[in-house]
Amino acid sequence: MEIKEILRQYKENKLDEEETLKLLKSATFEDLGFAKIDHDRKERTGSSEVIYGENKSKEQLTKIFLNLYEKNGEVLATRVNEEQFNYVKNYLPKVSYDKNSHILKISKEKKKVGKIIILSAGTADSNVANEAYEVADFLGSYVEKIYDVGVSGIHRLLAFEKEIKSANVIICVAGMEGALASVVAGLVKVPVIACPTSVGYGSSFHGLSALLTMLNSCANGVSVVNIDNGFGAAYIAHQINLLAVK
Amino acid sequence: MEIKEILRQYKENKLDEEETLKLLKSATFEDLGFAKIDHDRKERTGSSEVIYGENKSKEQLTKIFLNLYEKNGEVLATRVNEEQFNYVKNYLPKVSYDKNSHILKISKEKKKVGKIIILSAGTADSNVANEAYEVADFLGSYVEKIYDVGVSGIHRLLAFEKEIKSANVIICVAGMEGALASVVAGLVKVPVIACPTSVGYGSSFHGLSALLTMLNSCANGVSVVNIDNGFGAAYIAHQINLLAVK
Amino acid sequence: MEIKEILRQYKENKLDEEETLKLLKSATFEDLGFAKIDHDRKERTGSSEVIYGENKSKEQLTKIFLNLYEKNGEVLATRVNEEQFNYVKNYLPKVSYDKNSHILKISKEKKKVGKIIILSAGTADSNVANEAYEVADFLGSYVEKIYDVGVSGIHRLLAFEKEIKSANVIICVAGMEGALASVVAGLVKVPVIACPTSVGYGSSFHGLSALLTMLNSCANGVSVVNIDNGFGAAYIAHQINLLAVK
Amino acid sequence: MEIKEILRQYKENKLDEEETLKLLKSATFEDLGFAKIDHDRKERTGSSEVIYGENKSKEQLTKIFLNLYEKNGEVLATRVNEEQFNYVKNYLPKVSYDKNSHILKISKEKKKVGKIIILSAGTADSNVANEAYEVADFLGSYVEKIYDVGVSGIHRLLAFEKEIKSANVIICVAGMEGALASVVAGLVKVPVIACPTSVGYGSSFHGLSALLTMLNSCANGVSVVNIDNGFGAAYIAHQINLLAVK
Amino acid sequence: MEIKEILRQYKENKLDEEETLKLLKSATFEDLGFAKIDHDRKERTGSSEVIYGENKSKEQLTKIFLNLYEKNGEVLATRVNEEQFNYVKNYLPKVSYDKNSHILKISKEKKKVGKIIILSAGTADSNVANEAYEVADFLGSYVEKIYDVGVSGIHRLLAFEKEIKSANVIICVAGMEGALASVVAGLVKVPVIACPTSVGYGSSFHGLSALLTMLNSCANGVSVVNIDNGFGAAYIAHQINLLAVK
Amino acid sequence: MEIKEILRQYKENKLDEEETLKLLKSATFEDLGFAKIDHDRKERTGSSEVIYGENKSKEQLTKIFLNLYEKNGEVLATRVNEEQFNYVKNYLPKVSYDKNSHILKISKEKKKVGKIIILSAGTADSNVANEAYEVADFLGSYVEKIYDVGVSGIHRLLAFEKEIKSANVIICVAGMEGALASVVAGLVKVPVIACPTSVGYGSSFHGLSALLTMLNSCANGVSVVNIDNGFGAAYIAHQINLLAVK
Amino acid sequence: MEIKEILRQYKENKLDEEETLKLLKSATFEDLGFAKIDHDRKERTGSSEVIYGENKSKEQLTKIFLNLYEKNGEVLATRVNEEQFNYVKNYLPKVSYDKNSHILKISKEKKKVGKIIILSAGTADSNVANEAYEVADFLGSYVEKIYDVGVSGIHRLLAFEKEIKSANVIICVAGMEGALASVVAGLVKVPVIACPTSVGYGSSFHGLSALLTMLNSCANGVSVVNIDNGFGAAYIAHQINLLAVK
Amino acid sequence: MEIKEILRQYKENKLDEEETLKLLKSATFEDLGFAKIDHDRKERTGSSEVIYGENKSKEQLTKIFLNLYEKNGEVLATRVNEEQFNYVKNYLPKVSYDKNSHILKISKEKKKVGKIIILSAGTADSNVANEAYEVADFLGSYVEKIYDVGVSGIHRLLAFEKEIKSANVIICVAGMEGALASVVAGLVKVPVIACPTSVGYGSSFHGLSALLTMLNSCANGVSVVNIDNGFGAAYIAHQINLLAVK
Repeated sequence: MEIKEILRQYKENKLDEEETLKLLKSATFEDLGFAKIDHDRKERTGSSEVIYGENKSKEQLTKIFLNLYEKNGEVLATRVNEEQFNYVKNYLPKVSYDKNSHILKISKEKKKVGKIIILSAGTADSNVANEAYEVADFLGSYVEKIYDVGVSGIHRLLAFEKEIKSANVIICVAGMEGALASVVAGLVKVPVIACPTSVGYGSSFHGLSALLTMLNSCANGVSVVNIDNGFGAAYIAHQINLLAVK
Repeated sequence: MEIKEILRQYKENKLDEEETLKLLKSATFEDLGFAKIDHDRKERTGSSEVIYGENKSKEQLTKIFLNLYEKNGEVLATRVNEEQFNYVKNYLPKVSYDKNSHILKISKEKKKVGKIIILSAGTADSNVANEAYEVADFLGSYVEKIYDVGVSGIHRLLAFEKEIKSANVIICVAGMEGALASVVAGLVKVPVIACPTSVGYGSSFHGLSALLTMLNSCANGVSVVNIDNGFGAAYIAHQINLLAVK
Repeated sequence: MEIKEILRQYKENKLDEEETLKLLKSATFEDLGFAKIDHDRKERTGSSEVIYGENKSKEQLTKIFLNLYEKNGEVLATRVNEEQFNYVKNYLPKVSYDKNSHILKISKEKKKVGKIIILSAGTADSNVANEAYEVADFLGSYVEKIYDVGVSGIHRLLAFEKEIKSANVIICVAGMEGALASVVAGLVKVPVIACPTSVGYGSSFHGLSALLTMLNSCANGVSVVNIDNGFGAAYIAHQINLLAVK
Repeated sequence: MEIKEILRQYKENKLDEEETLKLLKSATFEDLGFAKIDHDRKERTGSSEVIYGENKSKEQLTKIFLNLYEKNGEVLATRVNEEQFNYVKNYLPKVSYDKNSHILKISKEKKKVGKIIILSAGTADSNVANEAYEVADFLGSYVEKIYDVGVSGIHRLLAFEKEIKSANVIICVAGMEGALASVVAGLVKVPVIACPTSVGYGSSFHGLSALLTMLNSCANGVSVVNIDNGFGAAYIAHQINLLAVK
Repeated sequence: MEIKEILRQYKENKLDEEETLKLLKSATFEDLGFAKIDHDRKERTGSSEVIYGENKSKEQLTKIFLNLYEKNGEVLATRVNEEQFNYVKNYLPKVSYDKNSHILKISKEKKKVGKIIILSAGTADSNVANEAYEVADFLGSYVEKIYDVGVSGIHRLLAFEKEIKSANVIICVAGMEGALASVVAGLVKVPVIACPTSVGYGSSFHGLSALLTMLNSCANGVSVVNIDNGFGAAYIAHQINLLAVK
Repeated sequence: MEIKEILRQYKENKLDEEETLKLLKSATFEDLGFAKIDHDRKERTGSSEVIYGENKSKEQLTKIFLNLYEKNGEVLATRVNEEQFNYVKNYLPKVSYDKNSHILKISKEKKKVGKIIILSAGTADSNVANEAYEVADFLGSYVEKIYDVGVSGIHRLLAFEKEIKSANVIICVAGMEGALASVVAGLVKVPVIACPTSVGYGSSFHGLSALLTMLNSCANGVSVVNIDNGFGAAYIAHQINLLAVK
Repeated sequence: MEIKEILRQYKENKLDEEETLKLLKSATFEDLGFAKIDHDRKERTGSSEVIYGENKSKEQLTKIFLNLYEKNGEVLATRVNEEQFNYVKNYLPKVSYDKNSHILKISKEKKKVGKIIILSAGTADSNVANEAYEVADFLGSYVEKIYDVGVSGIHRLLAFEKEIKSANVIICVAGMEGALASVVAGLVKVPVIACPTSVGYGSSFHGLSALLTMLNSCANGVSVVNIDNGFGAAYIAHQINLLAVK
Repeated sequence: MEIKEILRQYKENKLDEEETLKLLKSATFEDLGFAKIDHDRKERTGSSEVIYGENKSKEQLTKIFLNLYEKNGEVLATRVNEEQFNYVKNYLPKVSYDKNSHILKISKEKKKVGKIIILSAGTADSNVANEAYEVADFLGSYVEKIYDVGVSGIHRLLAFEKEIKSANVIICVAGMEGALASVVAGLVKVPVIACPTSVGYGSSFHGLSALLTMLNSCANGVSVVNIDNGFGAAYIAHQINLLAVK
């Protein structure tokens, strides 16, 4: 029963206070004990819950995955390891898994809209860039990848200036000194979502260097997500892309 | 002379190589010695250069301000102190200055488009929130402010749920533990730009606490700008807002 | 011999100074060489010594466990791994072990008093939350768990507002940005013990992000224990709960 | 109008949906523009709003102070400087101010209940300790102070062992290495709220040293508030003390 | 007496052991009590001692300045404030002082050799860049400045590509995200000395951001000096420049 | 009355339990309210209490200073500013004050024993080195100073090798990179107490750099005190020097 | 086709705009999809691309390695593990690999020029020092190694003073407190490239201690590369060495 | 040949300059290529070289171990793993190894002098405390251990007050909050060497918490060595102990 319906019935005294409260709760999420699945999220935020695979047992992951699959006909999980994948596969043989990005998903066919471009600074950043690609694609954005265009060979980047300018929003994935986002933001009119990675020598401090670089960008139009958080970059980029195609 | 024109003249041999190079340089920026004003920026990125007032002498600031004013008929400078303001006023009596946000500007009349909402957690965050307001307004976005809705009184925030959901993009300004962005992003479909402030007791470490909170948001659709960087938040929010009204 | 008895005998000259000193020492702790078991602790602090399993050899752990079991008829050890558990089981077959919380214990039947509620932000925080549960339960508090109520879906939390308000003290276990404690403390009259966890992406820095968030809570009535320290949260929550039922 | 009353009128159709929403909002807080005063807080959390003076203009502070005074007949503000105090005094001549703790208040006569003991390690910690004293006293707890009992002269502390054991809850205020909380918690049955201060030489790093010490206490029953946050320590100590006297 | 001479006299028994030791000491430095002036340094390292003005009293600074002036006919002091300058001027009216770079000097006429180029990212970095300019010029290098060519307007930098490539060594001075060094090093064959500055918003953390960026440069041929250390950058750049013109 | 006397009277029933407890307390310290002066400290640790002047009001400082002066006929206070000094002087005209080291003292004539050598790396470290000198001298050690012997001119240091080797214990005071302690400890048989100072450019981070250098010394026989803590270095050096002359 | 040739053909209308753009791109780099090989780099920066082996799959590494080998007849890869080496060997049996430095290479015979000296502080730093050796040697510099001359036995270092002074540039590799660079720079006229290593006890914090030491060197003529970055040190040292032999 | 002898022969012209230099070098250390064994160290610093086992190959360790054994008849190596031990045993079957402290040694019979007491806070600190024990014992000090006397049960520590006061120097080994050193230093007249360990929950940050605590000790007479550096604590404690028995 939907929330509005519950409220109406309460007003019409078809439900007493206690029943109303109980129904209201179960209407917006489902309680699996160890997890409360937030079915209201799609209504509220535009996307259904995405599963974060890390630190979940394979049994927990599978239960949540199946539950969401039944409700929505598609699911996406990030940070899934092979053991978790194999366990889910027993229950859902058609599930697909990508080793490089650690994405597990079943997705419905859908028309891809708008345009997001994902730039990565080096080959070593590709797993984070691919996580971003898979997530934005799943959510329904049209996505292009341009990899290995770090600033140490600035002409490689400038060669793609025209393509880059055609996007609604750009994701810059970079480790080491993370300077890519500043240079790109200086070239374009659209927002740049910067995603630092933990790639680098000693004093990169597991991504802190790239994170600080991006937060301190001298170029306008850069905002930043967490280290190695390709998912987060893709999610907000998709939201922005949607605004542009509405 | 525009760059395309210069290139065309070069191809038609009206300009030799050396002259071409020289013209290309001066076409895109103007060299004041201590500063190179980037007149191509509007073409390239959609907005003309905004002046960062800190660490500039009042003479330097004034020169750049006047130069941009002549070119564009409007200018915005951030982080301007009263001494700098008074000096500029000698040359441009109609310049306007806001003490709380430290914004100095002359702006043309323009129609405000779309909708950005700026939320602040506490009264003490208002100077950063106001910097964001002034900048987004100057750039041409329609902006609304809802201040003092921090999460310690969650019902104050929920009371504005409907208004918040009407924006194209939301800016959350918060110091201390900075939890506002996570709660808001869990309620809406649109991107949330989180701006940490340096407000707080000891272990807020001048905004580090709020910064980390926002980067680690458990809610989707949050990206982050630098501590106290109201300008940066407004700039990218305006870019997103423009995409939505195109 | 109890300390008061020793002192009395000393005053009555039944014991000379040297004997007195020796007896006084052994009365309050027992020296196993590598460890000094603090038998006076229950008298002094209200609870007997709890064993911290990490960095102890299985032989050391077993000796201390058996020693305390003989004295008190019950024992609790935290951070125990399976190898240590198996070794202790050889000597104490009825010992019970929980893999998720890494708690090893033998507990006496006792009436549970008062009410502690443990809230966790996400499924991934459950091992820390369960450590807190096991400890508070062992010490004699009545405990309820409400898991996976992180702030990104604030309505999940608000649905439990009434239950939450019924506790004498609340434990909030959360990783990532750790905002749960602030929201909860803004809703209730009772103390909130915040326990950050090391769950999260890159810049969570192994729990530092959640720790700082909780220390900087804009809501009143929050105090904080160490990262992943479910034991510590439970211990002080139990002390507070006891005060409420006295 | 109280919230329950509003709901009842809504059900009885005396209020339409829009009016209801509007009333609900104003019932729980009052909007001064730059601030939203949370009048529901006392109902919800047991204490009315306490004003944090830092970063507020003297005009803002005064408005909020007067507003709360009218509603509650008493008010407390922390971190108030002399200029702010003098401005408020113009409007409320009977307001009282303490320079050392920076507390501004008007308080009603009330019976002090229970017992909180505040320990401080050194004379230099007294302003934080006094902030804690003033706040707990204002909220209605009976409070005793024992100052300058740092661990470098452990016998000074042990001399007060009996007094210390008589409290319902103890606040330990200490800078430098902050070891006081561990020693005290090893002596007593009740919760210890540890408040680090920013007092110390170079590598105390403005209180970080004492903060980490207290979070890592080897003794059970310690939880920690922010650096120099005497207010926060007193607030939660008062909550605990109330539980003990109920 | 020179050291070799002392040794020779010792071998020829014109000096006994004790006298020899005493002479050897005074031959290489001069003891002013509070300072030991290292006259051997020029012989050993190629440049005479440069005075670091900070934390020296005006009397101390003057004594050292005069002592070195007598020995070498020229002196350079960095980080000198106006009060120190005025005091020295009493004794050496022809001394010259530059407010922006805080350099105090008397320099001999000398032919400038080779070529160093100093790039700065923004106008706000000019005092550090000017310190570098003054020092390298004093030491005898030919130096050119190209200021305000930060990466947010990459075309400004590329316009100077040819000039930049003409240097023997390049100094990049940049605050905020400090990306300039990486881009430049990707364009040239010669070493790049990167000097981070403390210019920037909150999470630049007084230059830490730029420092880490530069240490983690993805381009080859970058090495880094301390934050705001224009002197240090100039010194090593001069050493490199000298190698190229030998 | 001395403690042993009190105990004896208690045993002989001249004192009852309550009186005994009260006397025991007052025997070891004196309670000034805001401070508890630890008169037992000399008995226990070999030196009477030294006053830490920072964060004490001039009135508090004076009270403690006079109290200790009456008991011991001499007193030492560190970190005293001129305002505090002038206030004390009103009450004790013969008190002596040193601006550079911020030491306030009245000392008895005493024979200086053993030998401590204080080395400092640069002129800018002299206030910390002088604090160490004044303290060790006051406590009764014979002390020599050798200043400005930092490792950038290693021959200056080696010239004093013989003198350095004559000490019972050496204090190395150094800022910047703090390498002096490692080189010295590699030359001598006696303990080296390393005292980092907060002198230096940007990434010295107020002494953190020198502190870490000294903690990580590759040479044996180095231990470290807090940043700028000349007092602490002198205190432990004096303890070691005393052991050598016993 | 070279870039100049492409431009000429475009001017002569042998190429239309679109073809020109396409050719320009492929002329300067080669797109392998996951990587863009920068063939223009040698032209631009004097050295062809060096492969960073970490985080690349063995297949990716092999493809890039072979591609560069075909173009240049020699290749160098750093941070290569044995599994990667074995995979490459299948395709290029004559490739050589050094376990200690993790360098994989095929190098052409070439005359070694100039002189670089690599100093290391301890035996434990040898893998980083060897990485530097292999890289500088591959690039064509003449290199000498002097290992285990840390400052705790300063006479070991001074014994090599004459050799050290014969180099054009010196690389100092040191972990722990990293003081070697300061002492060496105080002895010589040439630039010192300091490379911190992650060798050391607890508070070396994985090389942070040595990094800060080197950045804060009190000696002139030191610049610093990233922690454990032997490659980076060698690259810039080679650039400097080349300047000296031109 | 001893150095003095070499010098004499040089003066008598039995050796020419070149030969002299060569001999001087080999007299003070022996060059194994990868290591330079410092045979002069005993003469200079009072103890022969101690081997740091970490990061050395088993072959390197064995060579250095045998070399030192031949020269001195005894050797000590720290941080040795079992694989290294087994390899050395092949060449020196009588070598002895202690798993807990990771010490490998052959020691001569010698009379133990003076008295060092090693205190540890918890059982988990025993491997560091044992490293300290083994080293001080090897160097010739008489050592006693008192373990598990952390401050959470202060009476356990006070029971040993008399023993503790009998030492010439005390080593305090503690992790977690590391408060032990402050309490002990407040009780005794002799120097306390504090050694932090990396034992503890999350925000102990691998020993940083205990390190800062010890550096900020409010008690006089504490100096600090690196985290987990039992060797370093023992070395300087032995130096101090020797001074006391001379």
